[in-house]
Amino acid sequence: MTGIDDLPIRDELRGKSPYGAPQLDVPVRLNTNENPYPLPEELVARITERVAEAARHLNRYPDRDAIELRTELAGYLTRTAGHQVSVANVWAANGSNEVLQQLLQTFGGPGRTAIGFEPSYSMHALISRGTGTGWISGPRNADYTIDVDAARAAIAEHRPDVVFITSPNNPTGTAVEAETVLALHDAAQAARADAAGALVVIDEAYGEFSHRPSLLPLIEGRPRLVLSRTMSKAFGAAGLRLGYLAADPAVVDAVQLVRLPYHLSAVTQATALAALEHTDTLLGYVETLKAERDRLVSELRALGCEVTESDANFVQFGRFEDAHAAWQALLERGVLVRDNGVPGMLRVTAGTPAENDAFLDAVRELMKETSA
Amino acid sequence: MTGIDDLPIRDELRGKSPYGAPQLDVPVRLNTNENPYPLPEELVARITERVAEAARHLNRYPDRDAIELRTELAGYLTRTAGHQVSVANVWAANGSNEVLQQLLQTFGGPGRTAIGFEPSYSMHALISRGTGTGWISGPRNADYTIDVDAARAAIAEHRPDVVFITSPNNPTGTAVEAETVLALHDAAQAARADAAGALVVIDEAYGEFSHRPSLLPLIEGRPRLVLSRTMSKAFGAAGLRLGYLAADPAVVDAVQLVRLPYHLSAVTQATALAALEHTDTLLGYVETLKAERDRLVSELRALGCEVTESDANFVQFGRFEDAHAAWQALLERGVLVRDNGVPGMLRVTAGTPAENDAFLDAVRELMKETSA
Repeated sequence: MTGIDDLPIRDELRGKSPYGAPQLDVPVRLNTNENPYPLPEELVARITERVAEAARHLNRYPDRDAIELRTELAGYLTRTAGHQVSVANVWAANGSNEVLQQLLQTFGGPGRTAIGFEPSYSMHALISRGTGTGWISGPRNADYTIDVDAARAAIAEHRPDVVFITSPNNPTGTAVEAETVLALHDAAQAARADAAGALVVIDEAYGEFSHRPSLLPLIEGRPRLVLSRTMSKAFGAAGLRLGYLAADPAVVDAVQLVRLPYHLSAVTQATALAALEHTDTLLGYVETLKAERDRLVSELRALGCEVTESDANFVQFGRFEDAHAAWQALLERGVLVRDNGVPGMLRVTAGTPAENDAFLDAVRELMKETSA
Repeated sequence: MTGIDDLPIRDELRGKSPYGAPQLDVPVRLNTNENPYPLPEELVARITERVAEAARHLNRYPDRDAIELRTELAGYLTRTAGHQVSVANVWAANGSNEVLQQLLQTFGGPGRTAIGFEPSYSMHALISRGTGTGWISGPRNADYTIDVDAARAAIAEHRPDVVFITSPNNPTGTAVEAETVLALHDAAQAARADAAGALVVIDEAYGEFSHRPSLLPLIEGRPRLVLSRTMSKAFGAAGLRLGYLAADPAVVDAVQLVRLPYHLSAVTQATALAALEHTDTLLGYVETLKAERDRLVSELRALGCEVTESDANFVQFGRFEDAHAAWQALLERGVLVRDNGVPGMLRVTAGTPAENDAFLDAVRELMKETSA
C-alpha cells in the first residue's frame, strides 16, 4: 500500500499531521469555541428562502466580488465597531482562515516571514507554512499579555513582512490594547521602511465578546493595518465558513490578485446575507455568552483554579501538573475541552448555562481528587 | 490615496490583474461554460430541505472530512466513470480551483515546478504562481492535440514535480487519449525517479460531456495519478463551487496536511448532497448539451468557420484575422463569447437551443460582413 511518504510531497510536510481538534461524540462539547445557541427558527426559515432563490440560479457562477455581502458586512461593522467602512474596505472568503491565506499569498510567501506572539491561534503558523512563509514565534509575558518592548525588539531583529496580533487572543482570551497595536505597527513599518513596509493583521475573530471596543478604527490612515473577523462565533455560524477583513481599499484590491475566482459560493453568500438580517437577535446571544464567560471565570477561581482574564467566548484555566491528564479526566466525565499545548493550562468554551454547570461540576470533582 | 503598488505585495504580483472573464449584462451569455439549464424545481426544493436541516446546526463546525459527501461522490464516479472508488479515494473542496491549489501546496510550491500544455485552462498557471510553484508552458500541435514526443521531451528536460493534463482541454475542447496520459505519466515518473516521482493531474472538469469514457480507471495502480472533477458544469452548479478529486488514498491523506480545517461549509455539503440525489435528471441535460455542442460544430463549419473538435460543453471557432474585434462584433449583437487569447480563435459555450440560434445568427452576420 502506498503511504504519504512514498509520494513526492514537500519535505516540510513529511511527518506532519493534519490540524484539527478531535471531533468526539460526548455530551458536553466545549472544545472548539462554537456558539452553543442554534440559529433561531425564523432565521433558519429566512436562510431557506434566500438559498432557494440562489439555487434557482445555481447553474450560473456566483457574484465573483460578493458585492451585496461585502456591503452588508461593511454596514454591520459601521454599526457595531465604531468606525465607518464601505464595500471597498471589506473582503470576504471561506472562513477567516482563507482570508489569512489570501493575505499571506499576497504579502508573505517564499522568501518572506510572518511573526505571531505565542501561544496564539495556531493556524497563523500553519497557514504561513502552507504558503511558504517563514514563521517567527514572538514572545509573550507570563500573564499572556504582549510584552511591547520584547515584541518590538523581535520585530526589529527579524524584520517580518507580516505581523499577526490576535485580540482577543486564542487560546488565552487576552485582549490587546490599542496602544500596543500601534507600537507594533510602527515598529513593523520602521523595520521595513526600505521595502514598502509590513502588513499588520489584527485577528479579531472573538471581537464581539470583548469588554473593549473593536480595534477597527485603527485602520484609518494606516493602509498596512488589516482587521480580520469571522461569522463563526458571534453570528453562531461556524458551519457557514464566512470570514472577512476590513482595511484600506488597496488591500482589498491586492488580495484579488491571488483569490481563486468565484471562491465564495452562491449558497454561502445567500446564507450569510440572511444571518446579517438577524444581527440583533444573534448579538443578544453574545450578551448571554459574555455573562456566562464571566461566570466561568469567577467560579473557576472560586474552585481554586488559575484563570486567565478573558475577552473571548472561552476561558483558559489551570494550572495542572499534567494538563493532558486533566483534559482526559474531564473527558471521562463527559466534558470535552481543549488542550492547546499551553503548559499547565486548558481552554473551555462558554456553552449554555447547563453545559457550563456540567463543566464546573466536572472540574470540582477533578480538583477534589487531585487535592485528595 | 494608497494604491496596490504602495503596499508590500510580492514582486511577482506587481502590475498583474485579477483573473476573471468580464461579467457583462447581455441577452446571450456564452462565455464561461456555464450550464444554461437552471436546476429543476424539485431539486431546488430538496436543496432547501437539506440546507434547512444544516442551518439548524450551523452554530457547529461542519464535518471537517465531509464523509457523507465524499461517499456520494465516490458512488457517482463508480456508477458513471467506469471504475470503482470509495470515500478513501475522493476529496472535495470549494471548486476544483481549491482542489488544484491544495495539490500544488502539497506537491508543488517554492523550488518546484509544474507543466501544462498550452493553450489550456489558464488557472493552472495562475494557481501555480499563487502557490510559488514555477510554471513551464509545454507545447501542443497546431490542431491543439498534445504532441506526445514533444511533451515527453519537455518533461525530460524540465523534470516537473506536477504535470497537468486537461481532458477535454479548455479552451480548445480537445480530448486526450489514455495512451497519451500514460506516456506522459511514465515520462514524468522516469524524469523524477530519484525523487519519489511526479504528480500527474488529469483535469476532467468537462469529462461528462466527452464522446469518450472517463480517464478515471487509469488511477488504478498509479498512486501519483490524480483525476480532478467539478460539479460546476455537468451538475449545472457553477454557483455551488464544488470540486473533487479521485486518487490513491495516500493522495487524499496528503492534501489534508495543507487543507484549511473545515474548508467546506455545511451549506455547501448539504447542497451538493441534494444535487447528487438528482444525478439522473442532471445528466439528462448533459445529453441535450452534447447534441447542441455537436450542432454548433457542424453549423459553424457550414458557415465557413474553422472549428476545433470538441469533447466539452463549448466549441472553439475561428479563424479570425482579429479575434478580439470579432468578439466585440458578437458582443454588439448581444452575444457574449470568450476571447481566451488563442490567436485567431474564440470560444462559445453550448447554451440552450435558442441561445445557440442567436449566436449562430450573429456569426452568420459577422461572416457576411467580413467577407463582403
